[in-house]
Amino acid sequence: MRYLMLKIAYDGTNYHGFQRQNNALAVQELIEKALKKILKEDINLAASGRTDTGVHALEQVVSFATNGRIPTDRIVPALKSFLPKDIVVYEAKEVEQDFNARFSALDKTYRYKIKVSAIENPFSRNYVWQINKELHLSAMQEASDFLLGRHDFSAFRTLGSTPVSSFKTIYKAKWLDKGDGQLEFVINGDGFLYHMVRNIVGCLVRVGQNKISVDNFKEILESKNRAKAGTMAPACGLYLEKVNYKK
Amino acid sequence: MRYLMLKIAYDGTNYHGFQRQNNALAVQELIEKALKKILKEDINLAASGRTDTGVHALEQVVSFATNGRIPTDRIVPALKSFLPKDIVVYEAKEVEQDFNARFSALDKTYRYKIKVSAIENPFSRNYVWQINKELHLSAMQEASDFLLGRHDFSAFRTLGSTPVSSFKTIYKAKWLDKGDGQLEFVINGDGFLYHMVRNIVGCLVRVGQNKISVDNFKEILESKNRAKAGTMAPACGLYLEKVNYKK
Repeated sequence: MRYLMLKIAYDGTNYHGFQRQNNALAVQELIEKALKKILKEDINLAASGRTDTGVHALEQVVSFATNGRIPTDRIVPALKSFLPKDIVVYEAKEVEQDFNARFSALDKTYRYKIKVSAIENPFSRNYVWQINKELHLSAMQEASDFLLGRHDFSAFRTLGSTPVSSFKTIYKAKWLDKGDGQLEFVINGDGFLYHMVRNIVGCLVRVGQNKISVDNFKEILESKNRAKAGTMAPACGLYLEKVNYKK
Repeated sequence: MRYLMLKIAYDGTNYHGFQRQNNALAVQELIEKALKKILKEDINLAASGRTDTGVHALEQVVSFATNGRIPTDRIVPALKSFLPKDIVVYEAKEVEQDFNARFSALDKTYRYKIKVSAIENPFSRNYVWQINKELHLSAMQEASDFLLGRHDFSAFRTLGSTPVSSFKTIYKAKWLDKGDGQLEFVINGDGFLYHMVRNIVGCLVRVGQNKISVDNFKEILESKNRAKAGTMAPACGLYLEKVNYKK
């Protein structure tokens, strides 16, 4: 038995998220089918986490055990022929038996991309949130600083999601001005609730639009009341960027 | 009667080119339908030129005459609601009666984007030609210099296309190294034959791969023989960038 880990990048536009579903095409299903082609056995992936419909990944991590005989260094090129061009497995390596892509994760980083421009760009429609008016970035950063540390993030959790602890620790929440109207929000933490990043970004953009104040943002976080945070940011701007594991 | 000109950007991935077709969805058809909605009359567009299936435009120019009553400065926002997100009309202005987007064009610029990378990027699959081995850029530039001036470009014309003169004048043919494996070819000329840019780029890439020499490229151009130029570059890397008209 070999224990393997894969790193995967995908354009989530055409998929109903990462996790295998009964009635909709998900990224996981296509990778498991491709693995079955090259390993000649059914594969059940553990993944670092789910992504929603339309959300992208620069580095999704999955793990599995196999008796398949293809050499580890042949897995990446072999998978290429069985996957569509919007899913790319770019690394495969052997790991210890106790490694699990989901349970061994220490922290995760997401990136959310916004483009501020009066004219929409047809090439960006699936890859950034296009906003047509200037945002007040320093206020958005000030509000983001309240996210740091351990909090009950119920205010930014979509209702109806699996009941797990709503306490999470955020280590980094940083806005970057990449010039030419391109804004990026990088958030790193030990875990994220359902829709948490998109709910946070939606609320921070309202701070940037002066619809709510920095203090309002703090009050919303502390209220633990999802009804106060408003509409979440669209899926297309969100990227799972990095998952960290113990060395 | 008003005479109008529109500038349009589109992601060509999901369309069978620009020109209206009987059995396939083209960009022109969607723009004419959207114009009919706001102008309440049938519109027949003249366009600066066609683009093939999968080819993109940063600035396609079209012109038409109308008795429709919507003010010119309302056309761009009004069209937005009737067009899909991969087609953006970003400028509308009145022109002289004798302006025709096709026949008044002085010259056109195309850009061809290549990404050299061992690992494919799922986000670039429809927007660049992904090549996995280093290209010899200075040889490609040396060969490109032979394109400058007036030539019979029959060697780079796809057969079966409408019989028009195969003589065209190229004013600029320049490779740019944008760093990180991103190469861009900018070509400007008074006109282009069917598939001409893609045939040229396909042949130049073979120069960059050392499959043919710079002198071979010159011989192919001078041979006027399409059979010698080899496979054309894929549509996804090509962008119609700019059309120039008399001031």
